[in-house]
Amino acid sequence: MIYITRREQFNAAHRLYRDDFSDEQNRKVFGKCSNPNWHGHNYTLFVTVRGHVNPETGFLVNLKDLSRIIQEQVVEYIDHKNLNVEVPFMKGRLASTENLAKAIWEQLETPVKTLGAELHCVKIYETENNIVDYFGE
Amino acid sequence: MIYITRREQFNAAHRLYRDDFSDEQNRKVFGKCSNPNWHGHNYTLFVTVRGHVNPETGFLVNLKDLSRIIQEQVVEYIDHKNLNVEVPFMKGRLASTENLAKAIWEQLETPVKTLGAELHCVKIYETENNIVDYFGE
Amino acid sequence: MIYITRREQFNAAHRLYRDDFSDEQNRKVFGKCSNPNWHGHNYTLFVTVRGHVNPETGFLVNLKDLSRIIQEQVVEYIDHKNLNVEVPFMKGRLASTENLAKAIWEQLETPVKTLGAELHCVKIYETENNIVDYFGE
Amino acid sequence: MIYITRREQFNAAHRLYRDDFSDEQNRKVFGKCSNPNWHGHNYTLFVTVRGHVNPETGFLVNLKDLSRIIQEQVVEYIDHKNLNVEVPFMKGRLASTENLAKAIWEQLETPVKTLGAELHCVKIYETENNIVDYFGE
Amino acid sequence: MIYITRREQFNAAHRLYRDDFSDEQNRKVFGKCSNPNWHGHNYTLFVTVRGHVNPETGFLVNLKDLSRIIQEQVVEYIDHKNLNVEVPFMKGRLASTENLAKAIWEQLETPVKTLGAELHCVKIYETENNIVDYFGE
Amino acid sequence: MIYITRREQFNAAHRLYRDDFSDEQNRKVFGKCSNPNWHGHNYTLFVTVRGHVNPETGFLVNLKDLSRIIQEQVVEYIDHKNLNVEVPFMKGRLASTENLAKAIWEQLETPVKTLGAELHCVKIYETENNIVDYFGE
Repeated sequence: MIYITRREQFNAAHRLYRDDFSDEQNRKVFGKCSNPNWHGHNYTLFVTVRGHVNPETGFLVNLKDLSRIIQEQVVEYIDHKNLNVEVPFMKGRLASTENLAKAIWEQLETPVKTLGAELHCVKIYETENNIVDYFGE
Repeated sequence: MIYITRREQFNAAHRLYRDDFSDEQNRKVFGKCSNPNWHGHNYTLFVTVRGHVNPETGFLVNLKDLSRIIQEQVVEYIDHKNLNVEVPFMKGRLASTENLAKAIWEQLETPVKTLGAELHCVKIYETENNIVDYFGE
Repeated sequence: MIYITRREQFNAAHRLYRDDFSDEQNRKVFGKCSNPNWHGHNYTLFVTVRGHVNPETGFLVNLKDLSRIIQEQVVEYIDHKNLNVEVPFMKGRLASTENLAKAIWEQLETPVKTLGAELHCVKIYETENNIVDYFGE
Repeated sequence: MIYITRREQFNAAHRLYRDDFSDEQNRKVFGKCSNPNWHGHNYTLFVTVRGHVNPETGFLVNLKDLSRIIQEQVVEYIDHKNLNVEVPFMKGRLASTENLAKAIWEQLETPVKTLGAELHCVKIYETENNIVDYFGE
Repeated sequence: MIYITRREQFNAAHRLYRDDFSDEQNRKVFGKCSNPNWHGHNYTLFVTVRGHVNPETGFLVNLKDLSRIIQEQVVEYIDHKNLNVEVPFMKGRLASTENLAKAIWEQLETPVKTLGAELHCVKIYETENNIVDYFGE
Repeated sequence: MIYITRREQFNAAHRLYRDDFSDEQNRKVFGKCSNPNWHGHNYTLFVTVRGHVNPETGFLVNLKDLSRIIQEQVVEYIDHKNLNVEVPFMKGRLASTENLAKAIWEQLETPVKTLGAELHCVKIYETENNIVDYFGE
């Protein structure tokens, strides 16, 4: 069993807030992250998959394939986008990094299987100080 | 003559576009950076000042004072904000990193003098791949 | 179950030595880390907590709260301090990074529970080459 | 139980290919990594060991000893070398990062025991985007 | 006058040696970098250009254009290549980082002018410890 | 003319204070950096030298020689030391990063000439946020 991780990046706008909260409540709960005019981040994404090394190639998966899947399933939907208003897989979810990690897991879990590997971890750096890991359960 | 640099960070939304361009023209010139729903970045700012070491303290400037000035003059206006719509010193400017560096220079040039130093460079990392330096002329 | 990590930093002096060792024994066991005049580090601390996402907020914990707890319980006691002589929770312990990780765990375990999360890992970078992880058992 | 990690680095040439593949097949499977004239990397290696803190020293292991073992068992064989043609412990293996991680595990597993610790993880950064972890099973 | 920097990366094999030196002389002058079986690096390249901000776009240059030029003129020739044997613009030069910086300058100086900017600096990190800057004179 | 930079690191204790100040005055001017029990840092040092490439070797200087000189003239005196009490070239100077940069310049200026290069810059990162550059005048 070996673990392989691919790093990808995307830049997005977002805002933390609830429709059913007043502006004041949103500010109280989410602080400056609730700014109605949005703010944004350079998100860094680490996707880890696991499985057995293919003796034919010495690879668990070809990282080009893993990168392509992450691009197609995740980055193209969220890079230079607004997480709250135009990302299909974030619809109906608060745009927190926790929820983003879960949504990215759902986007990747099945496609990764086509590579003969199993999704192990979705890690997101929202900033260099704030990091979320999700292991699918 | 010695040079001291303070690193600060801020997270902001922005969009590259011109009001007098059609959406199509904006996409052609600014690409995905023109997304009407905004995107954003973790900006990293390096402010360098220069001058002579004060023999009383061994300091060019007290970095707490330099940090405070950057916070008051820059970070409080742009952190968790939208560079296009709510930052007074970016009003009327395209929200490019080049223009942001120039605007930050203008915010800092005079206050830095009150510390007995001279502003030397404003450097901004928009991403780890895209960096702007402005030396005031 | 989701994992959230907050990075914090502190700068401290320390020395590795035993009172019941001669200077020569200390040098033999601890090398230059036993220098009687102290040395120091920029320590980087990563605190990971785990739990369930609150559907009200999309948060596991508000990272401001987690940061505040780390500041109050850990950073205020050790930042710009001497780990051997003035940190209550290091009293009677050799000032190794291993012991520091354990002591920080003890400081944080209970307060983190008040946030509705469970402490998962205390990771410390003493230098970019030397790293300790403690998972509480 | 505590975990300690030592970072080491080495620079090496390698090539991904199979002798029993034509050049065209190699290009198809391994892409530009199959270049017959080699290419290379700055590999970053993180070796994690685990065990109990020695109350005499406050150490799990003396990191100088761990570093020396990694130097002697791994770095001296592969730093400034060609992974395909002159590294004894890579003989007969495709020079993928996955296989390299396994081979380094085999080099370190027994010597680490002489320090009173157990090898836990071999992590290799081939680039900042491509990372492999091996836990020995 | 503003300065913009684009970071790009490439992985290459190389060897430091002179044909007219014996193996022993090469080892004496170039150390382990003269290994006849090659070694390699993840090179990080920072290209800085300077000029005036275009008031139409807020850009000095469009970083996509600068990136494309660096890809076409530099990265495609050297990424996953052997600097000594197959890079046209390194022919007849010792494959040191100093010479590589000069050769990259020559590749970029004219094309950068087509963007309306002037090449200012070619900076190469061979490793995190070894860095070369070339300003064209 | 080419510029080459070597990165080295050292860990040291220090304290910012004046003997002729009361504890209270020291706290007022130097804040927590004046803690009488010391604190410390992982200092990162970048030494840049400049000159002409030797056509025999492709080198400005052999970085092993530059590294050796930095080790002998600087690192051996300050690594795992107390900058205030046991570093000959800091005697009589306030242990600020500004003064440290100047003192390191004085240590290196002449020895670097023996390599056929000229010292250009001493840069010190005290933390990732606080950086000093000294160019010798």
